[in-house]
Amino acid sequence: MAVYTHVDDKTLAAFLAGYDLGHATSFKGIAEGVENSNYFLETEKARLVLTLYEKRANPDDLPFFLNLMEHLAQAGVPSPLPVRDRQGKALQKLSGKPACLISFLTGVSVEDPDNDHCAALGSMLADMHKATADFSAARRNDLSIAGWRALADKTLAGADKIQKGLAREISDEMEFLESNWPDNLPKGIIHADLFPDNVLFTDHTITGVIDFYFGCTDLLAYDLAVCINAWCFDQTQQFMPERAKRLTEMYDVGRNMTGGEVTALPILCRGAAMRFLLTRLFDWLNPVVGAVVRPKNPLDYLARLKFHQNVKDTAAYVV
Amino acid sequence: MAVYTHVDDKTLAAFLAGYDLGHATSFKGIAEGVENSNYFLETEKARLVLTLYEKRANPDDLPFFLNLMEHLAQAGVPSPLPVRDRQGKALQKLSGKPACLISFLTGVSVEDPDNDHCAALGSMLADMHKATADFSAARRNDLSIAGWRALADKTLAGADKIQKGLAREISDEMEFLESNWPDNLPKGIIHADLFPDNVLFTDHTITGVIDFYFGCTDLLAYDLAVCINAWCFDQTQQFMPERAKRLTEMYDVGRNMTGGEVTALPILCRGAAMRFLLTRLFDWLNPVVGAVVRPKNPLDYLARLKFHQNVKDTAAYVV
Repeated sequence: MAVYTHVDDKTLAAFLAGYDLGHATSFKGIAEGVENSNYFLETEKARLVLTLYEKRANPDDLPFFLNLMEHLAQAGVPSPLPVRDRQGKALQKLSGKPACLISFLTGVSVEDPDNDHCAALGSMLADMHKATADFSAARRNDLSIAGWRALADKTLAGADKIQKGLAREISDEMEFLESNWPDNLPKGIIHADLFPDNVLFTDHTITGVIDFYFGCTDLLAYDLAVCINAWCFDQTQQFMPERAKRLTEMYDVGRNMTGGEVTALPILCRGAAMRFLLTRLFDWLNPVVGAVVRPKNPLDYLARLKFHQNVKDTAAYVV
Repeated sequence: MAVYTHVDDKTLAAFLAGYDLGHATSFKGIAEGVENSNYFLETEKARLVLTLYEKRANPDDLPFFLNLMEHLAQAGVPSPLPVRDRQGKALQKLSGKPACLISFLTGVSVEDPDNDHCAALGSMLADMHKATADFSAARRNDLSIAGWRALADKTLAGADKIQKGLAREISDEMEFLESNWPDNLPKGIIHADLFPDNVLFTDHTITGVIDFYFGCTDLLAYDLAVCINAWCFDQTQQFMPERAKRLTEMYDVGRNMTGGEVTALPILCRGAAMRFLLTRLFDWLNPVVGAVVRPKNPLDYLARLKFHQNVKDTAAYVV
């Protein structure tokens, strides 16, 4: 949400000299992404985003993310395309930080999606999952069930400060998830953080999917469960069944879900709600001094978790 | 340096409906300006910056700033042009804040200007001063000599924490300035904050002058003195005489300086150094909790002040 590393015009010009992009014609820091520095960069030949990876990014993961974006863009998914320099390198070093140029994508993210936005999301998500079937790299999901347990252990002591009984609810749910989490569903590359602010639309057409920095290998249907949580509740935390129906339906049209995936949707949705409940709870209990971004309310995801706990079966999401 | 007020897609669409600009095709918060929220906005018809004025901006001053930018842009000075809605209004209200759309200017600001940048600056500054000769509005400079005294009074107690003897140096200099400040020089509209980051270049051509929010009525040659301070010292605080010569020469070519202005340059430069020394000192002593922007080092301007105190006469700036 800010620019942490300042890049001056001479540093930029020297950096651009390695590319076949011409000179910079515009260069502005953009308030995007919580963890990295991002600049809007226009050159004589292209519109780009320059990202400098700050300390929370693991440099070992960067080739995975960049290769994934490139793979998706080449397969026609509207992901940013990392730009390679004259030596063919996409991942660079700039002002002491790992850095990369990616293509700038047009479109505007929607804050409160409608049914048609959700339908478009379902189709795109299916395309993304199919497009990575032949992507050879893999990356473990640090925020899958073992990661939730670690976060739960760090937050249980403080949880009741936010709401009485929250620690108990988290413990019980973690036990349920650990005993029942499915492990025999189709796996592949998932985005894992496909919130509305990571999807750009022109009208109801998706023109961009961004921020692949949680991308990893995990259950494909878990990605859909993240989307149900992030897109199918309104701003008062009410479930919007028609949104979920359109999302799930169009996902299934694009990529036929297995029976096991369909049946597992309620627990996958509970898991996804738990993941965001726990990360938000951790950020709430451990505010960063000097941060511009206000931590998001963890209780929004407790409300979602309770909704999913009460559904009888997958029909809740598809009718 | 951040976005303080979030504007969502629906709010933006409703706002744009008042203009003849088409729909938004891109919308990103930009990390520009310390005090306001700024967005890069592209529509089907135009590239713009949306500014929301945050609490430090005095709403009563906004019509002056917007009219000034419009006057300059219409006179051919590369200032942003405020865009009027279908009713002819430029100043709006958005998400509870005063807001305005202005044209987006291409170009990149230079961190360490060379002689040719300074020459271009001198010509543009003269154009700006000539272009406002027929601008009828006026605005008092809150950061002229009376304003410095007020800041000096607020910072003297803490000044020696930064450097021993600093309070004494400020007091002595303030007395000198108050006794000798010229009041019979040509006045007009000045930018008053014309630092390199407020000027956009394409090669050595100025394609943009931005951030008119210190614009006011004051001595024209004081604007030149601000530029000498901001552009004609290198990054180790060494005076660069050739830069000053080219700046002053090209300013004079564009707008013939009076003899009084030429003679007064050393004291005007001392005043300009004092203005930035004092505001930086105040910001250093009163850090904003949670601010992203690190306060700038006030001692950089003490070094400039000492340089100006030691010059014999204007020849120092023009040979």
